[in-house]
Amino acid sequence: MNFVESDAGVCAAKGFLASGVSAGLKESGKLDMAMILSARPAAVAAVFTQNLAAAAPVVVSRRHASSGSARGVIVNSGGANACTGSRGLENAEAMAEAAAAAAGVALGEMLVCSTGLIGAFLPMDKVLGGIDKANEALAADDTCASEAIMTTDSVPKKAALTHKQGWSIGGICKGAGMIFPNMATMLAFVTTDAVVAPDLLEAFLSEAVEESFNSISVDGDTSTNDTLMVFANGASGIEPDAGELYAGLESVCKSLARQIVLDGEGATKLVTITIVGADSDDEAKQVARAISGSLLVKTMLFGGDANWGRIAATIGRAGVKADMDLLSIDICGIRLLERSVPGSSGDVDRARKALTEREVDIRCDLASGDGSAQMLTCDLTEEYIRINAEYEL
Amino acid sequence: MNFVESDAGVCAAKGFLASGVSAGLKESGKLDMAMILSARPAAVAAVFTQNLAAAAPVVVSRRHASSGSARGVIVNSGGANACTGSRGLENAEAMAEAAAAAAGVALGEMLVCSTGLIGAFLPMDKVLGGIDKANEALAADDTCASEAIMTTDSVPKKAALTHKQGWSIGGICKGAGMIFPNMATMLAFVTTDAVVAPDLLEAFLSEAVEESFNSISVDGDTSTNDTLMVFANGASGIEPDAGELYAGLESVCKSLARQIVLDGEGATKLVTITIVGADSDDEAKQVARAISGSLLVKTMLFGGDANWGRIAATIGRAGVKADMDLLSIDICGIRLLERSVPGSSGDVDRARKALTEREVDIRCDLASGDGSAQMLTCDLTEEYIRINAEYEL
Repeated sequence: MNFVESDAGVCAAKGFLASGVSAGLKESGKLDMAMILSARPAAVAAVFTQNLAAAAPVVVSRRHASSGSARGVIVNSGGANACTGSRGLENAEAMAEAAAAAAGVALGEMLVCSTGLIGAFLPMDKVLGGIDKANEALAADDTCASEAIMTTDSVPKKAALTHKQGWSIGGICKGAGMIFPNMATMLAFVTTDAVVAPDLLEAFLSEAVEESFNSISVDGDTSTNDTLMVFANGASGIEPDAGELYAGLESVCKSLARQIVLDGEGATKLVTITIVGADSDDEAKQVARAISGSLLVKTMLFGGDANWGRIAATIGRAGVKADMDLLSIDICGIRLLERSVPGSSGDVDRARKALTEREVDIRCDLASGDGSAQMLTCDLTEEYIRINAEYEL
Repeated sequence: MNFVESDAGVCAAKGFLASGVSAGLKESGKLDMAMILSARPAAVAAVFTQNLAAAAPVVVSRRHASSGSARGVIVNSGGANACTGSRGLENAEAMAEAAAAAAGVALGEMLVCSTGLIGAFLPMDKVLGGIDKANEALAADDTCASEAIMTTDSVPKKAALTHKQGWSIGGICKGAGMIFPNMATMLAFVTTDAVVAPDLLEAFLSEAVEESFNSISVDGDTSTNDTLMVFANGASGIEPDAGELYAGLESVCKSLARQIVLDGEGATKLVTITIVGADSDDEAKQVARAISGSLLVKTMLFGGDANWGRIAATIGRAGVKADMDLLSIDICGIRLLERSVPGSSGDVDRARKALTEREVDIRCDLASGDGSAQMLTCDLTEEYIRINAEYEL
């Protein structure tokens, strides 16, 4: 293994500073603005929500990131600045402008993200004050930044790896609900001090996101603000082997995505869904998504019930051709259906016992082709309802 | 108005008998087997689940109904006989055979339905005993039948109309969860004593189901057992005007579908979603379905929150082309978004107050074309989770 994990995030890579401050956007007084800044120009690649109601900061960041080069990003929680029309767009531009001015970089080098309630205008006096505070607080420590981007998250999320050659890659993210491809309601920021060309960074990001953030689901909703950004500032002076660079990026993205599902609103279980034997990988993913989105499967997992019939019924409505007579289903490694023949009640009892664990898995074999896919999801609980019925800033 | 409502169901029409008995399939000892029988041959039309994992009774009923003529149906709750392979198929055939023998009709004239837990075999000794009991209990009263088909339903569901010319149409149904086009996890039985040709009955049923059972959603799941059957035995001797016959059928189907949503598992609100201004009716329905299936919208309605941003965000990911700048959203008749400009906080307060009612509505205008659609759904509550995490017979 050529990588060593650390408990840092975006500051694992040399030449990146971060901060998290309170601008008074959250009534609780908790940290609500973060800034990440590279000491030198960095290559940047980004992936944004495909929601037509893309938030104003997404519009601004998409434009600024299109040059392939950036210096940093300013982020607020406590308000999504989505569905806010032209005034929202002006506010997002003003945020980028103020952050760029404070950091002494060009306007086009500063990206901007927001997360929180949709449809409300940001209190710009507080936001602009927060930007100055965030700029002054910049340091080689990402602890406050990882907290300042949280909304319904219960824990901050970080991941970082250092390669034995001396370059690092790491990230922070937020997201706990409204999580579904493409993509999660999530903001994720990844940095590396490796030397990487913008084109390669973009190509690798597309691939890594498919294997990580686009393979998780909490509740089937896609947000207006989803953003994943990767900055590569080359501060290590090392141009890594492309395969190792990709491995590092994918590993960090997978770790962050997994932390999002683990922190899924109200979730008590992390569920890995594996589909094999489909006619294609795409069809396997379609089946995996249907299962990961089924309320009946997700509530069954919360209840610890090994009711494989609900899984079979979901496959039957997933929209792919499948011969149900060939279907096999395993829960936590225990075969409950073998080519449409149910297992014994003893098997069901063992599976129920296995479902009391925090991490569980479902594996379905369609016994038709070579297509396979894997998705991570969580169970659906009463706590999810409470969180989302009473969502406040 | 040429129709008079009554509180009957399948026995509103002359020449139909019904019964509901306990065969011991439910641990609670509640009624669990129903039978409906026409005193004379009847035209029949039926719509079944499109789930690939169609239950054994669906396979048998599809075959028997294909002749366009039938005498009745035997139904059990307490077990779906789905995902039960060849043994399940034999059991479904044995049910139809025993019911046909008891009623003294040909095997091909008896249909069969099951509802309950997927993946378990039916206890056939109890089922066969129940069939005899159900046959003996047949009477011109559908009260027990409407109760015997219930699973998680909290109330029996009936609707009936009598035309002033003297013919009637009525039905009973069950369904409370796993409700989504196409179709609900539901069983519905409609009877009429009008004289109707099988072809016309089938054509009218396809149209009526689109306007009723295929326009409701509780949790986005499609079951293995969904069945809707219509029997027309001509016992009134009246061949109604086609338009009036259709109006009666659609009205009964709509009433039954509405009762299913009102009884949605754990639901506290009946929500009508209307989409206008879409490029086509199909696109309008796609948007209505996305909203009716969004956990974030459904939990928001449970919480009584007028958070129109979640509705806008759902439209943005619904997969249709929409200009979000033209979008208007009303909640309970209060305009909260007018061509992307938010209403006042006073409007939001009024909408919150309106959302405390049992019946609420959401209306979205995409301001593009003439396409429109309407769907009924319910809110998503902690009670839904409790019901589905702890589902027992």
